[in-house]
Order: sequence, then C-alpha cells, then structure tokens
Amino acid sequence: MRRAKTLNMPKGFRASGIASGIKDNNKLDLGLIISECPTVCAAAFTTNKIQAAPVKLSKKHLRRSNIKAVIVNSGNANACNGEKGYEDALLMSKSIADELNIKPWQVFTCSTGIIGYPLPINNICSAAPTLVKSLKTTGWSRFSKAIMTSDSVNKVTSIQIKMGGKKVTITGAAKGSGMIAPNMATMLAFIVTDAAVNEKDLKVITKDAVDDSFNSISVDGDMSTNDTVMVMANGAAHNPMPKSKSDDLLNFREGLKEVMIDLAKKLVKDGEGVTKFVTLEVNGAVSSKDARKVTKAVSESSLVKCSLNGSDPNWGRIIDAVGYSGAKVEEERVDIFFGESAAALGGVVASTPIGKLKREVSKKAFTIRINLNLGKASHRVFTSDLSEEYVSYNRLEYALKIQGN
Amino acid sequence: MRRAKTLNMPKGFRASGIASGIKDNNKLDLGLIISECPTVCAAAFTTNKIQAAPVKLSKKHLRRSNIKAVIVNSGNANACNGEKGYEDALLMSKSIADELNIKPWQVFTCSTGIIGYPLPINNICSAAPTLVKSLKTTGWSRFSKAIMTSDSVNKVTSIQIKMGGKKVTITGAAKGSGMIAPNMATMLAFIVTDAAVNEKDLKVITKDAVDDSFNSISVDGDMSTNDTVMVMANGAAHNPMPKSKSDDLLNFREGLKEVMIDLAKKLVKDGEGVTKFVTLEVNGAVSSKDARKVTKAVSESSLVKCSLNGSDPNWGRIIDAVGYSGAKVEEERVDIFFGESAAALGGVVASTPIGKLKREVSKKAFTIRINLNLGKASHRVFTSDLSEEYVSYNRLEYALKIQGN
Repeated sequence: MRRAKTLNMPKGFRASGIASGIKDNNKLDLGLIISECPTVCAAAFTTNKIQAAPVKLSKKHLRRSNIKAVIVNSGNANACNGEKGYEDALLMSKSIADELNIKPWQVFTCSTGIIGYPLPINNICSAAPTLVKSLKTTGWSRFSKAIMTSDSVNKVTSIQIKMGGKKVTITGAAKGSGMIAPNMATMLAFIVTDAAVNEKDLKVITKDAVDDSFNSISVDGDMSTNDTVMVMANGAAHNPMPKSKSDDLLNFREGLKEVMIDLAKKLVKDGEGVTKFVTLEVNGAVSSKDARKVTKAVSESSLVKCSLNGSDPNWGRIIDAVGYSGAKVEEERVDIFFGESAAALGGVVASTPIGKLKREVSKKAFTIRINLNLGKASHRVFTSDLSEEYVSYNRLEYALKIQGN
Repeated sequence: MRRAKTLNMPKGFRASGIASGIKDNNKLDLGLIISECPTVCAAAFTTNKIQAAPVKLSKKHLRRSNIKAVIVNSGNANACNGEKGYEDALLMSKSIADELNIKPWQVFTCSTGIIGYPLPINNICSAAPTLVKSLKTTGWSRFSKAIMTSDSVNKVTSIQIKMGGKKVTITGAAKGSGMIAPNMATMLAFIVTDAAVNEKDLKVITKDAVDDSFNSISVDGDMSTNDTVMVMANGAAHNPMPKSKSDDLLNFREGLKEVMIDLAKKLVKDGEGVTKFVTLEVNGAVSSKDARKVTKAVSESSLVKCSLNGSDPNWGRIIDAVGYSGAKVEEERVDIFFGESAAALGGVVASTPIGKLKREVSKKAFTIRINLNLGKASHRVFTSDLSEEYVSYNRLEYALKIQGN
C-alpha cells in the first residue's frame, strides 16, 4: 500500500467543481462525480433526528443500488426547509440526471452550509449543463474545493494497492470544520475506487472504517443534520472479485480505512480555530462502551479544550471529565500521560517536573493517554483545543447570511 | 414571603471569613458557619465519580446527624490528593472542632479551587483560632466572600416567611462560575434557616429544590469533583414543628426553593465570560426525561452558545441540537421562539422579520422556548453564552498555579 505523490483518480471516474452563485464572490459551490461504469455504493449518514432533505432523498436512492453520480452543493444545507426542501433536493438530482441521461434515483445528492434557509435551486438547475461539461478525469481537486464551507483548505487523499495482481486506486475528498462530533459532523466525505468489490462486503467494510475514522473525531461536539460518508466502487481496475475474508478484501479494507483516517485527521487539523491536534487514547476500560464514554467526555469538555489551547497540562480537568463520563472509574487507579510523561499516577499528581509536561502540551500535535486500569477495552479519538478564534468565528453566521431588519 | 432588603441572618447562627494565605494578596479564603443550637441538615453532592476528600468526609459526618459547624476553604479543591487529601480534610474539621469544643464529626467540610494540588493544611490549622474569634451574627457577607474562586461578586440572598405565626428567615450563599453543569457545578451553596423542621422533611424538600435550581443551570457543561449544597435548620425561630403536607411546610418549601433559584440565577449571571442570561424552556416533550435531554443538548452546544454571544438568532443550530439530543423529535412539529417571537414553526423558518429576532437576542436576558408538540412534559434551565473571554480566562489555570520548570 502506498500513498500517492500525485492525486490519482481511479479509472472510470470523472469529477468537476464550479461556481453557481450560491456563494458570493464567484467561489466554487457545486461539485459533481460520475462513474462511467456501474457502481456499488455504501454510505453512512448522520444519526441526528433532524435530517436534511438531501439525506432523506439519498437514503432512498441508495436503496435502489444503482448510483451513477453524486452532486453536492456548499453554502446551503437544505435542512429544515420543510416539503419545499425535499422538492428542491429532488429537482437537484433531476437537473443533473437530465444532463447525464440517467434517472434521478441514480443521483446521490448532498448539501452543506446554513440550516433553515431556502436552497437557491434555480442557481443549481441553471448550472447543471456547465457542471457536466466541466467533468474531467483530473477534476477531483476542483470537486474537493466546491464542497468546502468554513474549511481553510481542501482535503483530499489517494492511495494505491494491489488486488489480484491489479493496481487499484482509492481516492477521497472531505469537508467540514465545525459541528465536528463523534458519530459524524457537519461533514461530507466521498471516496471513489476502481476496485471490484461486492456491495455486501463494501457495506460492512465501510461501516467499520467510518467507526474508526469519522466517528472517532471531535472538534466541538455538535452533530449536524447533513453528515454523509459515501463510498463508490466501479470495478474498472478489473481485479477479480475478492472473496469474503480473502487477503485481497482485507487489503482493500485496510486501504479504505487508511484513506478515511487520513481525511478524518485533516478535518480535525482544519477545525474552526484549531491550534492543537490531540490524539486521545483511553485504555483499561471495563468495556468498549465505557472507553467511548471517557473519550467523549474528555474530548468535549470545554475546560479541557481551553487548557489544551493554553498549552496548560491541567490533568485535574481531565480526571474531572473522566469522573463524570458515566464510565466505571476508580479514582486511585487512574493514570494520565501527556506524551510519554506521567501527569497523574493512581489518581494523584506524578513526580514529572511541570516543565516537562508543559513542553509536551506546547507541541502542535501530541497524545493524551488515560489508563483506567480496570479492564482491557480501549478507544482512540482525534480531537482539538477550543480557542477564542472558534468563538469569534461562530458568533455571527445567521446574521451575516440573513439580511434585513 | 418577602425578599429582605438587608441581609438578615437567621437566629442562632454566626459566620466569619478570613484570609489564611491559601490565596495570594491577602484575599479571603477561609469561611465558617456555626449554629448555637442543635441543627438538622440535608445536603446534595456531586455525582462525579471522582470526588474530593472533603465530599467523602462530609457525607460520612452528615450520616451522624449532628452537624454544628461548616468550614470552607477556597483556592484549593483538595481533590485527587489521595490518602493525604483525606487526612488533610480530617485535620481541617478537627482544627475547627478543637476551637469550638465539639467533635470533628460535627463539622461539615468543603473545599473549592484547583484540583490535584496539596491542600495548604498548615495555613488552615493556624488560622482556625482567628476564624472562630471572628464569628459574628453579621458575618454572612464575609463568609460568602471567603468561598469565592473565579466569582466576580459574592452571591447571597435572604427571605423571610411566616411559619405558625413566627417569623422565619432563610439565608443563602453560593459560589461558582466555571464548571457549571446540570447535576451540579464547581459550585458550593450553603443555606441556613432558623425554621424548626424535621430532618426527613428537610431532606425531601432539599432534593426537590436542588433539582429545580442548581441542577437546572448550565454554563459550560463541566461537573466538578466538589459540588455541594448544604442546608442547616436550627429551629431558633421557635415555630411549632410543621406537620407533613401542612401549609407551613409547603410555605417553607417554596421559600427554600426561592432562595436556591435566586442563587442559581446569580451563578449563571456571574459565569466565566458570561454576557447573556438565557432561560431555556422546553415544552411538549413525551417525557420529563426527554425534555431534560433537549435542555441539556441545547444549553451545552458550543455552536448555540457562540450564537448567543453574537446576538445571532441562529435557530438552525438550536434545532440541530434538538435533533441529536436523543429525545423523541418530529422535525415538522418543532417550534422555536426567541422571547415571544417565533423563529421557526413546524420545523421551518417563521415569518417574523429577522430584525425583530435580532432585537430579542440582543437583550442581556431573554427566553428561548422550544415546543416539541409531542407530549406534555417540560423542563426549564438557566444558561449562558460562550465567549472569547471564557476561553482566555480558562487557558492557563494550572500553569499559573504550579510554578517550576
């Protein structure tokens, strides 16, 4: 398995990104991916009970197992727009289906941006012909830019693996920098591959890989109405169809996971106002559920996140969050490490000089390790600090967007 | 029932507050309350599994039903200090018991401040004689100042009611401004009354009043290791002992609740970096548990809190948090109001002009009302915004306290 130096596109896919006027200043806001051959797809969606219209529609289209195109707009979430929202999502898929001469239910539709504001559907319909004309085998980078909202950089990654002697490419793009929580975020991710793989295996592998990547990151603990991870495999690499539990399939699973983890890390690093990238590991929990309770409580604690921002090795706030996480905890067994340095051992302060701890948490990226010393379960998340910039960035979204008196 | 203009002290109580050197710059950091007659007590403690030594000790002392004094230090939480912490808490109660010529188990002990840093027990023991000598019937205000940590003002309140023809006074003091979460906060509250009331009734009434006050506030969602609410009644008003379900007892219950709610509101208003005081009401939930899930998710959402800070009527972030709260929700039934103005009706934007919504959320204090329109259960919390000042205030606690390299 090797990370590609250049951004390779799997065979049989094309992509594009254009400015349709949903965003101001001629910014890219509409993206399209198509496959020239039939695909199998798998997707994971937000578990939020308030779901955007395109999420509802794409779930329905996905069930017909014949997706050929993905259209995504940024700048507007098309969420909480009632029946009109659903009709607009339908129009969005129809507009692109007409251009491609396929059926609307072969189009997977996504939106991201502000909630509760009508989708500028006319912009999208008018732009559909140009969007299709712009499709290129080298269009992945433009696509990845067209799906950005508050992202400061586009996030792409690509790897190549061997399956049955054939070179297979797995390429992904993701967006999202606020509302990032375990169990998905205001986050969209699209992964395309030319591997031949059957739909059932792809679904299992995707669920597993999403759990270890996009469901294991946290910036601010908010989970959005639009979160979607979508994987599309078109078999254009002509590898022999891998059997269940074969080495080829295992290889593919590791490759897909690597792409997703790389994208997930990029999401955290580019989180709104993020200055620290923290790997938070919890070990020694009595159950996997308990380990997840601890990573959730610690990674979402405002006080812990403020300390990270200040490069302050404040382990007291960490053990406090461990205590209210709901997990089984015995105070006198809890160890906390910043990097390799113990901050607390057996629930009390360790002998590590404070300067050494300070140097560790002053790094741009470091690991916090919590050992509950009660059992064998563990969990790991990627998280970040909470900065004044996060607050100033998020104070005024609605007022800036909605004009009037 | 009337709110006292001056801060009345119930009969038979004295209080004091002094500087013992735990805090720098001669700031008050040690407080004492004593009752001259026997008392009945009730208390509520943090549900955090990591509990400070004084919490463990006070729970034990409370079970012997003969508390005569309360000693509180600020500047150090005496949490996560292992066996030494417990010994220090014991020494703290012993030092004051010796001076008052009572037993150590008649002393209720509390600490608040930094976690995981040894309690300066020598300061406390040396200061005990002065602390006792300073006791005054007018000492409540100094006591309330001695328990402050990051509070910008001391929080006190006092009311007088009639019970069986006698004037009864209920007076409270509270501290806390960060780590404020439902189910208690880095929060200490002490309420003293000269009412005669039996211990069993006092316990029931206290639990109920705490639920509607201190357990219904949220600043940052962090719950501390030291939270304690303590109520002491000494019967010095000589009212006849009220019977269960009597008007007198009902009257007392309302009085105690009023004192606690007033203190709880003061805690939120003085929260770290708080610029907005928001009453968040959820109605129409299918169960009380569901209503609480929604108040928790909305009041703890960083994105919602940033919007409040910016006076931004961003109802999309509110409905998003409603959706991931875990409560039963039907998108097309959700109504959201800022003050009396509808922002969303039936899950979509309402026709209220944006300027009207902006004016409402620009107020220093206002109400957000969410109606799920599914059932009859409701819940109300007092909450706040998230500001850049909160972050800057909380970045560096540990590094500032712990010197060295």
